[in-house]
Amino acid sequence: MQRIACKVEYIGTSFAGYQVQPNGRTVQEELERALTKLHRGTPVKVVASGRTDAGVHAVGQVIHFDSAMSIPEDRWPKALNPLLPADIRLAASQHVSETFHARFTTTGKQYRYKVVTQEDVFMRNRATYVPVSLNLEAMREAAQGIVGTYDFSSFCAANTSVQDKVRTVTRCEIIQGGRELEFILEGNGFLYNMVRIAVGTLLEVGTGKRSPADMEGIIAAEDRSAAGKTAPADGLYLWSVMYAEPLFQQAQK
Amino acid sequence: MQRIACKVEYIGTSFAGYQVQPNGRTVQEELERALTKLHRGTPVKVVASGRTDAGVHAVGQVIHFDSAMSIPEDRWPKALNPLLPADIRLAASQHVSETFHARFTTTGKQYRYKVVTQEDVFMRNRATYVPVSLNLEAMREAAQGIVGTYDFSSFCAANTSVQDKVRTVTRCEIIQGGRELEFILEGNGFLYNMVRIAVGTLLEVGTGKRSPADMEGIIAAEDRSAAGKTAPADGLYLWSVMYAEPLFQQAQK
Repeated sequence: MQRIACKVEYIGTSFAGYQVQPNGRTVQEELERALTKLHRGTPVKVVASGRTDAGVHAVGQVIHFDSAMSIPEDRWPKALNPLLPADIRLAASQHVSETFHARFTTTGKQYRYKVVTQEDVFMRNRATYVPVSLNLEAMREAAQGIVGTYDFSSFCAANTSVQDKVRTVTRCEIIQGGRELEFILEGNGFLYNMVRIAVGTLLEVGTGKRSPADMEGIIAAEDRSAAGKTAPADGLYLWSVMYAEPLFQQAQK
Repeated sequence: MQRIACKVEYIGTSFAGYQVQPNGRTVQEELERALTKLHRGTPVKVVASGRTDAGVHAVGQVIHFDSAMSIPEDRWPKALNPLLPADIRLAASQHVSETFHARFTTTGKQYRYKVVTQEDVFMRNRATYVPVSLNLEAMREAAQGIVGTYDFSSFCAANTSVQDKVRTVTRCEIIQGGRELEFILEGNGFLYNMVRIAVGTLLEVGTGKRSPADMEGIIAAEDRSAAGKTAPADGLYLWSVMYAEPLFQQAQK
């Protein structure tokens, strides 16, 4: 058996999320169905770097699976894409050692969150439309308050069972391009809804409801109710997943 | 009655085209339905700069209509967008004189055609995927052969009733951005399928099937069969429509 890692892109709009569940179409079940078909009925289990929620997109989700098929390491997209629905695509593949695990050996993740400040029909379901003007400088100042190692309980959905809520955020930037804003968050790991709560809080700074100086107190509260609203799923993209050894060197966007 | 001009964006994917027809959903009928509803049942006719085919998108279609409603000139998007389906949006509006006519007073149009050279799930139905490498320099040289005033019969769908096929193309450029190519064609008017046939021919230059030097003979032939295949509708965008007096100054992308 050979372990294969793949980079996967999907449009989250028509999925009930990544992970298999009783009701609703999921990315995992589509991947496993295509792989099982390719393996002539032998079930293939897929492990991803982590789940994504309903409506959340991925340009750099990473999965692994084991296979006895002798397909050249970079050819899995060619083999599998014709069996996948049009809203999922394998973008790259490579052989990895048996010690590689898409979920347990990650060293970090990057998420991006897209906001449009003018309605744009082509960004429907792919960005969040904020119909008011935003103070970019204030949001950028507040974003710096999120960078660091903290107990991020304030930025974690209240109904989570995770005990250790200390995470390190290494990057929180906002890029402006035309009428689009892109929030970039990178870190060693993220709690449930953490990116969406962080962006929702930064947007409240952008509208003047909160000030950049509030960020310190929000984090120190270690209480979900101290932070802002959870931003909608549509704008969120799992952008890339990092491992000790970089994967898919040539296929990076 | 006041004449109003609007800039309209739409995703062409779920439409049978712009113009009302017996079968299939069209942009025109959705616009007229929303306007008639806003006018409490009084039918409102919409005139566009021209039709677009099934699957073709618009970021800068221009329409006009006449109304007795006293809505401030820039407020038509606010009034009409809530009544429109999510794949059509008014982006701007302004009052124009009675001599303005969205179709008959145009002075030029710009189309853009998007091609991706690597499969991209987010560009599905929004760009044409060309799975081979393209010679950008050769395509750019060939593109210059299209600029000028010519009888463009070779770049016109065979089944057209238009008599005068002389048009002036003022710009034919190819912009590269990451794994996306954007063909920009601007001119005083375009024949049926002209942009798609021009792009299809340029792509055949890009793959080496034709050479840039062939363009002169293709145009001189004045025969549809001399040119390349018609490129698919998905990649085509009506980008902007020009009039003697510039419209929507502040809302341009």
